[in-house]
Amino acid sequence: MAKHCDEATIDRVCEELKAAFGDRFSRNLSVRQAHSHNVTALYQQTPNGVVYATNKDDVVKIVKICAKHKMPIIPFGAGSSIEGQLNAPKGGISIDFSKMDQVVSFSPEDMTITVQPGITRETLNSWLRDSGLFFPIDPGADASIGGMASTRASGTNAVRYGTMREAVLSAEAVMADGRIIRTASRAKKSAAGYDLTRLLVGSEGTLGIFTEITLRLHPVPEVVSCGACTFPTVTDACNAVIESIQCAIPFARVELLDEFMTKACNAYSGLKLDPLPTLCVEFHGDKTSVAAQVSLFGEIAASHGSKDFKHSTDPDKRAELWKARHEAFWAAQASLPDCDVFSTDACVPISRLADCVGETQKDLQEHHLIGPMVGHVGDGNFHVLLGYHKGNKEEEKKVYEFSERLSERAISMDGTCTGEHGIGQRKAKYLRLELGDAVDYMRAIKKALDPDNILNPGKYGFEDY
Amino acid sequence: MAKHCDEATIDRVCEELKAAFGDRFSRNLSVRQAHSHNVTALYQQTPNGVVYATNKDDVVKIVKICAKHKMPIIPFGAGSSIEGQLNAPKGGISIDFSKMDQVVSFSPEDMTITVQPGITRETLNSWLRDSGLFFPIDPGADASIGGMASTRASGTNAVRYGTMREAVLSAEAVMADGRIIRTASRAKKSAAGYDLTRLLVGSEGTLGIFTEITLRLHPVPEVVSCGACTFPTVTDACNAVIESIQCAIPFARVELLDEFMTKACNAYSGLKLDPLPTLCVEFHGDKTSVAAQVSLFGEIAASHGSKDFKHSTDPDKRAELWKARHEAFWAAQASLPDCDVFSTDACVPISRLADCVGETQKDLQEHHLIGPMVGHVGDGNFHVLLGYHKGNKEEEKKVYEFSERLSERAISMDGTCTGEHGIGQRKAKYLRLELGDAVDYMRAIKKALDPDNILNPGKYGFEDY
Repeated sequence: MAKHCDEATIDRVCEELKAAFGDRFSRNLSVRQAHSHNVTALYQQTPNGVVYATNKDDVVKIVKICAKHKMPIIPFGAGSSIEGQLNAPKGGISIDFSKMDQVVSFSPEDMTITVQPGITRETLNSWLRDSGLFFPIDPGADASIGGMASTRASGTNAVRYGTMREAVLSAEAVMADGRIIRTASRAKKSAAGYDLTRLLVGSEGTLGIFTEITLRLHPVPEVVSCGACTFPTVTDACNAVIESIQCAIPFARVELLDEFMTKACNAYSGLKLDPLPTLCVEFHGDKTSVAAQVSLFGEIAASHGSKDFKHSTDPDKRAELWKARHEAFWAAQASLPDCDVFSTDACVPISRLADCVGETQKDLQEHHLIGPMVGHVGDGNFHVLLGYHKGNKEEEKKVYEFSERLSERAISMDGTCTGEHGIGQRKAKYLRLELGDAVDYMRAIKKALDPDNILNPGKYGFEDY
Repeated sequence: MAKHCDEATIDRVCEELKAAFGDRFSRNLSVRQAHSHNVTALYQQTPNGVVYATNKDDVVKIVKICAKHKMPIIPFGAGSSIEGQLNAPKGGISIDFSKMDQVVSFSPEDMTITVQPGITRETLNSWLRDSGLFFPIDPGADASIGGMASTRASGTNAVRYGTMREAVLSAEAVMADGRIIRTASRAKKSAAGYDLTRLLVGSEGTLGIFTEITLRLHPVPEVVSCGACTFPTVTDACNAVIESIQCAIPFARVELLDEFMTKACNAYSGLKLDPLPTLCVEFHGDKTSVAAQVSLFGEIAASHGSKDFKHSTDPDKRAELWKARHEAFWAAQASLPDCDVFSTDACVPISRLADCVGETQKDLQEHHLIGPMVGHVGDGNFHVLLGYHKGNKEEEKKVYEFSERLSERAISMDGTCTGEHGIGQRKAKYLRLELGDAVDYMRAIKKALDPDNILNPGKYGFEDY
């Protein structure tokens, strides 16, 4: 793919950035590579340089220098995105936000906090530890808040607390022309104009670059109970979830591990679950409400063939269970020795979840693919983690084709080709399959707000204008 | 203000519409007037004609005819918007959606329903009556779902169930070029592309015209308890709400009536409240959870000086209380004999609510204005209903100026000039004061998606391109 800028322009931009940022700008290859790694089969495309921003004025300065030369800009948080969002197919400058990791202001009465985009979710929750409040969104990785907002991240807690769509109340962003805007006030709701907050959240750095993000927080629940139970089949587990949600059980988490994944987690993280499809669940609330949730869920699980629902409010047991769930990616990797892991991501209306999971398992068998499955099943979202060897073209083709069939399957069930990983470089075709002509209007918005296509180009398939 | 189209063009458009729609198109003055009434001090600006659409193909046809002639289009639901959203300052064609009021599909397992935009919220809830599910958003008026989506409506239940921003899962819309798009799949969450759903919700008909809306529903709570209690001052009532929310009481409703409004509701709706500032509250959940909520709220209310918290799960008492709350506008009108009522709308972070309400009450006194106050205080949103005489220029100026001061006050407290009524024709100046340069990017989006400015022009102050 052609680079945006010729070598002379790249040199000129780099000289200007060097002059402005000194040691905080680097053209070192290993630094550039560290800012464009990928977890899927995508290959690395490194930026031409990396700047470590320390404040919003830095970001404005970088954007103005790059805009002048039509040089691409790729915002970089913690590097945990997995659809090539950090790749630089047209070269460009990566802005590293790790030094912009401060809390800007905290309003416990309003349960909101304004942070710089480089703070990670774990650091944020450590900061909040004594406040009685917490930030619930948990995509597994210790991602940066800026990255999570950019990809509309969600994860295990989304079934109760929503995704970054709901968590971001307002944002400040530098736009492609170098102007800085705030998308909304800090009022809990507003009918003032177009919802620029929700437009920027999930736009994968293609419309603006976050410099501050205001988040909604939640009170730490009085009681947290979690547990696990196994089911004869994945379908039974899915049906237990559907029935529970219809009974208004406000799951804080409800995660499915298929048989393969249960075994992998037993082996990797020392869980002692029966080697069967498993639901890991968590309930938040006051004592009476949690007791009621646990009891009702237990009845529903039993009616779907589960015989072993164990639950506990012991924080150590809770930590053990969710550590195992967070390690699922590594457990999958360990269970697929010498393999790379390719993560898929599909989300369907929950009524179709058992169908979609069932057909996907059949697909795995038919194509002799090995892949454990984990799912945020309360949201109808699941991932198959496929073992393959990166660099082996035939195996790469096979996992890509599987992922494509899964996207098509989810879309045919009125679902989406991505519940939480985003479109990035690989799924533009499925964005079109899913939303048809709507993509033309997305492109029109991109063109209106970033006419030179300098903000994270090559994502969404929007490179061609 | 200049009309978009000259008389010859208007005649040509009307002829084409007459040929296409026969009796379903009208140029009758009283029909046109019925499609542009207003509740604020704004004066009526009637469209040139009205078409009654019966299906999405009709809407496409109307848009194509109007687009060809650059004729403005104003979508019309139930006519309950109050910021002039239905006015036709540049003339144009009003599309009446009252005949597009059907349920398109219902998925109880997913707790979603897809409806045509003309269905009203009460009709929808009647339709759902035996399903165990309900649609919670309640702006007071029996508004249409299309209109509610267009204005990002909220109301009394938003404190628990969110606003139309959260309630709309996906939408189908006809865009300015006559193409029809769907904004999202029916998956509960998605990271697929820009959030066109949230962009269209709240855009007041300026970016696209809804033809179908998919809504999230909620399980009917097992127990509903509601009640009321009075406080020595409005500040005490606000502080009780703030503390309750921090204690994670999941209010289903928490409404403030000031002293004047309490008296007005007593007189109009036969409530027997002490003539003091009042909170009307509602709690949803299972029996134990509701009992716990009621008990905790009672303690908090008492600690802020309330002595008379009465609550009940009796459906008749509940109906009586909320009927009174819904009649507040009429109660206000009755308490301001021979007056018109001008409704303001401000929303601030809840930590500033008592300040904002207090300063606003002082403002009323200082300017010798009479206006009872109601508020969705769990969201920091409140309305002052001012008595004045429409047509009396001096009084109109006075209520406008009060409303402007209130907008400025809310904005200065990091709030918004509109929590739920929208920008419409009157608040463009405050949109700019609130969001600064962000408005330029809204305008750029409008221009990209509707280059001829035919969709509900004259709203947001976007008329000048």
